[in-house]
Amino acid sequence: MSAVPANLHGYQQRRQALMTQMEQRGGGVAIIPTAREWVRNNDNHFPYRHDSYFYYLSGFCEPEAVIVLTVRQGRQQSLLFCREKNPDHEIWDGYRYGPHAAQELFGFDHAYPIADLDACMPDILSDTPHLFYSAGNAPHLDPSLQQWLQAVRERSRSGVQPPHTIIDIRPLLDEMRLFKDTHEVTLMQRAATISGQAHLRAMRHARPGQFEYELEAELLHTFRRHGAQSPAYGAIVASGANACVLHYQNNHSQIRDGELVLIDAGCEFDSYAADITRTFPANGRFSKAQQTLYELVLAAQQAALDCARPGARYMDGHHAAVRVLTQGMLDTGLLNKNQVGHVDDAIASQAYRQFYMHGTGHWLGLDVHDAGQYREPDQQGDERPYRRLEPGMVMTIEPGLYVRPAEGVPEIYWNTGIRIEDDILITPDGHLNLTRDTPKTVAEIESEMRPHTMRP
Amino acid sequence: MSAVPANLHGYQQRRQALMTQMEQRGGGVAIIPTAREWVRNNDNHFPYRHDSYFYYLSGFCEPEAVIVLTVRQGRQQSLLFCREKNPDHEIWDGYRYGPHAAQELFGFDHAYPIADLDACMPDILSDTPHLFYSAGNAPHLDPSLQQWLQAVRERSRSGVQPPHTIIDIRPLLDEMRLFKDTHEVTLMQRAATISGQAHLRAMRHARPGQFEYELEAELLHTFRRHGAQSPAYGAIVASGANACVLHYQNNHSQIRDGELVLIDAGCEFDSYAADITRTFPANGRFSKAQQTLYELVLAAQQAALDCARPGARYMDGHHAAVRVLTQGMLDTGLLNKNQVGHVDDAIASQAYRQFYMHGTGHWLGLDVHDAGQYREPDQQGDERPYRRLEPGMVMTIEPGLYVRPAEGVPEIYWNTGIRIEDDILITPDGHLNLTRDTPKTVAEIESEMRPHTMRP
Amino acid sequence: MSAVPANLHGYQQRRQALMTQMEQRGGGVAIIPTAREWVRNNDNHFPYRHDSYFYYLSGFCEPEAVIVLTVRQGRQQSLLFCREKNPDHEIWDGYRYGPHAAQELFGFDHAYPIADLDACMPDILSDTPHLFYSAGNAPHLDPSLQQWLQAVRERSRSGVQPPHTIIDIRPLLDEMRLFKDTHEVTLMQRAATISGQAHLRAMRHARPGQFEYELEAELLHTFRRHGAQSPAYGAIVASGANACVLHYQNNHSQIRDGELVLIDAGCEFDSYAADITRTFPANGRFSKAQQTLYELVLAAQQAALDCARPGARYMDGHHAAVRVLTQGMLDTGLLNKNQVGHVDDAIASQAYRQFYMHGTGHWLGLDVHDAGQYREPDQQGDERPYRRLEPGMVMTIEPGLYVRPAEGVPEIYWNTGIRIEDDILITPDGHLNLTRDTPKTVAEIESEMRPHTMRP
Amino acid sequence: MSAVPANLHGYQQRRQALMTQMEQRGGGVAIIPTAREWVRNNDNHFPYRHDSYFYYLSGFCEPEAVIVLTVRQGRQQSLLFCREKNPDHEIWDGYRYGPHAAQELFGFDHAYPIADLDACMPDILSDTPHLFYSAGNAPHLDPSLQQWLQAVRERSRSGVQPPHTIIDIRPLLDEMRLFKDTHEVTLMQRAATISGQAHLRAMRHARPGQFEYELEAELLHTFRRHGAQSPAYGAIVASGANACVLHYQNNHSQIRDGELVLIDAGCEFDSYAADITRTFPANGRFSKAQQTLYELVLAAQQAALDCARPGARYMDGHHAAVRVLTQGMLDTGLLNKNQVGHVDDAIASQAYRQFYMHGTGHWLGLDVHDAGQYREPDQQGDERPYRRLEPGMVMTIEPGLYVRPAEGVPEIYWNTGIRIEDDILITPDGHLNLTRDTPKTVAEIESEMRPHTMRP
Ligand SMILES: [Mn+2]
Ligand SMILES: [Mn+2]
Ligand SMILES: [Mn+2]
Ligand SMILES: [Mn+2]
Repeated sequence: MSAVPANLHGYQQRRQALMTQMEQRGGGVAIIPTAREWVRNNDNHFPYRHDSYFYYLSGFCEPEAVIVLTVRQGRQQSLLFCREKNPDHEIWDGYRYGPHAAQELFGFDHAYPIADLDACMPDILSDTPHLFYSAGNAPHLDPSLQQWLQAVRERSRSGVQPPHTIIDIRPLLDEMRLFKDTHEVTLMQRAATISGQAHLRAMRHARPGQFEYELEAELLHTFRRHGAQSPAYGAIVASGANACVLHYQNNHSQIRDGELVLIDAGCEFDSYAADITRTFPANGRFSKAQQTLYELVLAAQQAALDCARPGARYMDGHHAAVRVLTQGMLDTGLLNKNQVGHVDDAIASQAYRQFYMHGTGHWLGLDVHDAGQYREPDQQGDERPYRRLEPGMVMTIEPGLYVRPAEGVPEIYWNTGIRIEDDILITPDGHLNLTRDTPKTVAEIESEMRPHTMRP
Repeated sequence: MSAVPANLHGYQQRRQALMTQMEQRGGGVAIIPTAREWVRNNDNHFPYRHDSYFYYLSGFCEPEAVIVLTVRQGRQQSLLFCREKNPDHEIWDGYRYGPHAAQELFGFDHAYPIADLDACMPDILSDTPHLFYSAGNAPHLDPSLQQWLQAVRERSRSGVQPPHTIIDIRPLLDEMRLFKDTHEVTLMQRAATISGQAHLRAMRHARPGQFEYELEAELLHTFRRHGAQSPAYGAIVASGANACVLHYQNNHSQIRDGELVLIDAGCEFDSYAADITRTFPANGRFSKAQQTLYELVLAAQQAALDCARPGARYMDGHHAAVRVLTQGMLDTGLLNKNQVGHVDDAIASQAYRQFYMHGTGHWLGLDVHDAGQYREPDQQGDERPYRRLEPGMVMTIEPGLYVRPAEGVPEIYWNTGIRIEDDILITPDGHLNLTRDTPKTVAEIESEMRPHTMRP
Repeated sequence: MSAVPANLHGYQQRRQALMTQMEQRGGGVAIIPTAREWVRNNDNHFPYRHDSYFYYLSGFCEPEAVIVLTVRQGRQQSLLFCREKNPDHEIWDGYRYGPHAAQELFGFDHAYPIADLDACMPDILSDTPHLFYSAGNAPHLDPSLQQWLQAVRERSRSGVQPPHTIIDIRPLLDEMRLFKDTHEVTLMQRAATISGQAHLRAMRHARPGQFEYELEAELLHTFRRHGAQSPAYGAIVASGANACVLHYQNNHSQIRDGELVLIDAGCEFDSYAADITRTFPANGRFSKAQQTLYELVLAAQQAALDCARPGARYMDGHHAAVRVLTQGMLDTGLLNKNQVGHVDDAIASQAYRQFYMHGTGHWLGLDVHDAGQYREPDQQGDERPYRRLEPGMVMTIEPGLYVRPAEGVPEIYWNTGIRIEDDILITPDGHLNLTRDTPKTVAEIESEMRPHTMRP
Repeated sequence: MSAVPANLHGYQQRRQALMTQMEQRGGGVAIIPTAREWVRNNDNHFPYRHDSYFYYLSGFCEPEAVIVLTVRQGRQQSLLFCREKNPDHEIWDGYRYGPHAAQELFGFDHAYPIADLDACMPDILSDTPHLFYSAGNAPHLDPSLQQWLQAVRERSRSGVQPPHTIIDIRPLLDEMRLFKDTHEVTLMQRAATISGQAHLRAMRHARPGQFEYELEAELLHTFRRHGAQSPAYGAIVASGANACVLHYQNNHSQIRDGELVLIDAGCEFDSYAADITRTFPANGRFSKAQQTLYELVLAAQQAALDCARPGARYMDGHHAAVRVLTQGMLDTGLLNKNQVGHVDDAIASQAYRQFYMHGTGHWLGLDVHDAGQYREPDQQGDERPYRRLEPGMVMTIEPGLYVRPAEGVPEIYWNTGIRIEDDILITPDGHLNLTRDTPKTVAEIESEMRPHTMRP
């Protein structure tokens, strides 16, 4: 429990890199708090989840902790404020590092009890030009910060000054987090692999008459027995019409024969998320109409995957998927050519949004919707171009098709929701699909599901 | 999804019973908000859990909802403020009842959009003598309440008055919640049965070399596939020395041959909690020393169970368990008779707390540490007696023994943590053990574990 | 400075009377904080004004102080939390009593440093049934109170309980404050006398060409040289059309010949307010039109004064004044009989509100708009009758007439604002006019103003 | 009332100058709110005082107003959010400009109702790199700002971004406010002249047996009748020992024959402060001991005045005054040479602080302790030198001497407090004493006081 963190040097390097950026902006003090604990009901808490920025810079998982970095006249220091050792509390709530061990094991220059934060910060904030902090993102800390600054201001007649500028530290860290290093890619591959196995197992267990939550149970079992600490987000197990609710999470319906089942689920492994969606027939065999739509979404995903390479713009994949999907909507009669015109018209008028109303992906990492700008960071304004993909970025590619009952829409497609989502690492040559092993074609899916539906 | 709630009449009866109490206190307005949603990381939320008081009075599970009850001149009204229907949001986040359907299906006199709360409340709070509200327990609502009251005060020159008295509504509801009705007992038995099956399965799967989380996976799987929505609290799977940390929850150690495994876990089924602890040998066979301590705890639990009947005081079971445990500590040499004296002395001096430092149970219900006073509610002061047990109360009985390495303590017992916990419904005749089917004796446990450890 | 307060026994009696009321409601703890200090600009504060409720119970004028009264099992205690002695601070900011001297001189049972409040209150609030407190009226204390209650709640498993009911202490104190005792009447007479002298002096100094603030200077001078600590409210010195703005306070216009000047001003003497309005001609002679309207207001005031006796309802004076004024509006042509009908009609339709849009008075005491209900306190609802006047009540009687330019209104009356306000103590026999010495009739006013306008 | 502000062009120039600075820092949005209204007691408010920064940029005096400046791609805009016109409110509370008139008369590019602020700000804050704002100084606005920023963040997937940097706008404005322009100097001279006349009048009226507040009344009268809107700070009228309390403000003691009276008082004229202290004998004649100490302070002030010229460091005057005072303490025996050594030793050891414990002045302007750094603004750190004086700066020079009873201090000097304070404008040639006309030498003071103490 008190072993050296696997990636100690990596965390130190990230703090170092951040301090270099601080230096380039003229130095100052950075404050990065971790997350709070939240009550679920009465005195029962939600499972604790640290703040992703804080963790990215420390690997430290305890609540009630704050990183403070100081860059002043060329001298850099990294400080950790954390819970003190307390044998009585530890009998109840478990091991804590305490400042002494934490300083050593997590490679900080100094560590102090969190209870000393209020006493220390006014000095630390005195006569430092810039404060690197993300206001509004830690509401429990904002009032304390104002008190610290006020304490500095009250010394101003003696010539001491508070920081005159607050630089939002998140954009700096967002840009760092956008590019995953080897350690991160290893963890993300592990999260992806476990999640893929969970999908495979759910597929194999599925049969009509089950409740959606029975498939969720298979997911949870697979996640946890492989050491994942938590689902990365609330799993979606949506049968039939439920799949047309994008974030459906009740998972309490009974699955009927002939329906598709859409599962969007991934685990969080050592704080990194996977995010996979697969859609399959409850009875193991796609109907003809289901197959038509499914292969349309699959083709759209392939078109988007083809854009996942260095130099392409972030939005290229979305545009490619939309084109394939829209053409398919016209071909299948979901959209009426007489009404919406040709594919270019249907794209321009956004007619396709009746059946495809979300984006084709997002960054993935410590958060399932991970940090990082989608447009060129060095430009300003609403019109700046989407950023070019570069090696080290990880993103999802997840087109879908959702057909609710509506006049003019062929009834054979009603209540069908399909989404196919993979997790993609951009590489120098193109990309690596971290979720490549999870069955995706009609043939693969029907083959995996065969044993228990149509034993030969 | 829009079906009538199973227990509609029950929820209405509870609101009715509460309003009768309000009437007896001179009438007024009650405000009972549900819980907030909480962010886990970035834009990813924790699974939503409604407030237990709110749910107890409504069966309503959506966030952003407030119950308002008015009792005025003999006229009672129950109002619900909830989210409005919104087709766009519902495509993304799923079905909402909306005020119209909610009013009808959940049996309220009126229902309104939550957005109208600020506009409605000053009128509702005008010229009502008592406000039934629990200040400080819904920090997001407290400031709004102050604004509503201020709005009433500003009309005071025209003779309108705000409530002059705020009665904490929780004690009234606590007393109601303490006595479970048939519907609740049915759900709690279901939660207990599922949880017991989960323990049984974990026991059967256990073997040295596994990681603790692999057993947690078995628990989660069993919970969810039987329809439980969530664990009722963070599961404890603690092998060896970890079991001496009372709320150990990392569950990431490897289980070693010869160790005991303590599992404290229960599911939440339709909002009601189970809470079971079992302790068993990783390899399927208790060592002699483990058996000695285990049977001591078991005897202590039996002594406490014998006190679980109407008329006994809440603390009687604890005192009985402490006496058995303390005698056992002396008999086994955990405590040194020469130093601590006879059993009465060791109890008086609390010497036993070195190895048993927690209470023997707690109320159980919508919350795992459920609402309800432990002392006679109609008396005041620190010295008032513990309350007498009555039919309908549900409580846990969970003695334990935790031996950390320490000078003077026989090494053979070091790093042993044992707890045995059942969920008990007080009945007119005595009690019903809701978790009676989960193996508990040495013989039962070893028998269940035999198949995979010592196949004959 | 450390002398015994003039009214020590009176303050003790008030605390005693409050505790008797607390006892009748079952006992508990009362918390009454004083007011905060407020910054005016940069580090410069507004002159400190204590909270009126706090002062009423203590006579104590320092900021950072809280009264705590406990009534428990027949035992009553009055506690004061206040600033500690601090020689360094006292060199800068002046004398402080400190807990030791304050306890003795102000007659509390105990006194403690204000810094100990957080540590003491959880114990004080444990196992007490009622909290007497006015939530929302001391926003700086509300969060602290929630923390104290939370600290008590956290001990609840050991059988300790927080108060289950919060009774708004202000209505109890409002009812006490409504009836002035001899000490209060003496101070109010002093405030009224000083204020009357100030009005007289302003009248004598007035002449066309002055600025309004020059007359305000006369008021301030008179107030302060007689020992009044402050104006009781922002003085209104309104010439001509400015008098039609009810709370005009800029006082920066030049007074023109032929205009009326309305002065509404009173001082605060030892925390008690006076509130006098007089209206007079800038040049010392009422024009005919001015006199007509002035004598109408004077007659209305007399009608209201005739209602100022025990047994009359609070609103009787207003109704009497409105009737006189409305009849006068019809007689003078301000209201057109052909349009609004007879006096009863014009009252019923509130047509008179074009020229008289405010009430005819308010309670007066520690606050200029003093505490106290205007309707019967023992009844509920919007329709309950206005309360009957009783000896000891102090109120203002202040009818007015404000004629803005408008079509159909005789031009001769345009831009005329008149108000006449006296401070009235209800006596067993009728009333005592505390401001009786301030000139009020046309003859009195013209006589006082004669020396400097029309020297014979 | 709706006339063009006297200095319209000046305010526009200041906003322009600020926007130029914003441009140099890369552009962005500045938010400058005015001050809140504060309740004094019950529903009675303190006289409203606008925020000095806000006023400096607008000349606008109404509460509930915010200036927003935007500098974006070379385009500058100045916006005002203010109260809407409201005829009903204006009958009660007086004239308001309303956005339409305010935009025109105060020279803004646009003006909007304050109620629209929440709706407008997210757009204004979108895609702007820098926010110029002083967090923590307008606690009522900070939470709103966080909501606006959060609203921008929620649009971030569409490529919109919130400001990444918050620059404290106060240091920029402090530096501007430090240098007074002609308009400001004119107002400050007016404030100084009125305040000097008030001192002179108090001096002439003083006689033993009066209460201190009677002299305060003379001050208030003089301030207000000359059009000053308010005292700039709470007047100190301290007789005898009271003068040793630096911020004594009770002013309720009776003045005794033979005592000195110290008056520290100044008015605020059109928002600019004067700050004058004079000390004189209650009976019009300095005793020998009083004269000795008085002339020592006068000499110290002269030494400090000699340093008030361009190029001198801010602290030079203080050092000069301390040297004179310390030498005088040694000469008079206040300090014992045998104990504290020579003047250099007594300065080094700060022995003089027993009798002179405050600084020798402060910046003066819109605030009595005005904005502006005391050390070189372009350097960092605690050790950076005090700034050099430059033409346009205004400061007070106010040495003092306070002799409390103490062992070893000659009794003849006990309970003597003396301070002499003038307001100084630094000019290219040296300085201009704005308060030059207020009697200061022993001869001048005794001459002014003669008429009523020793009529010839
Ligand atoms: Mn996704
Ligand atoms: Mn338990
Ligand atoms: Mn009045
Ligand atoms: Mn000064």
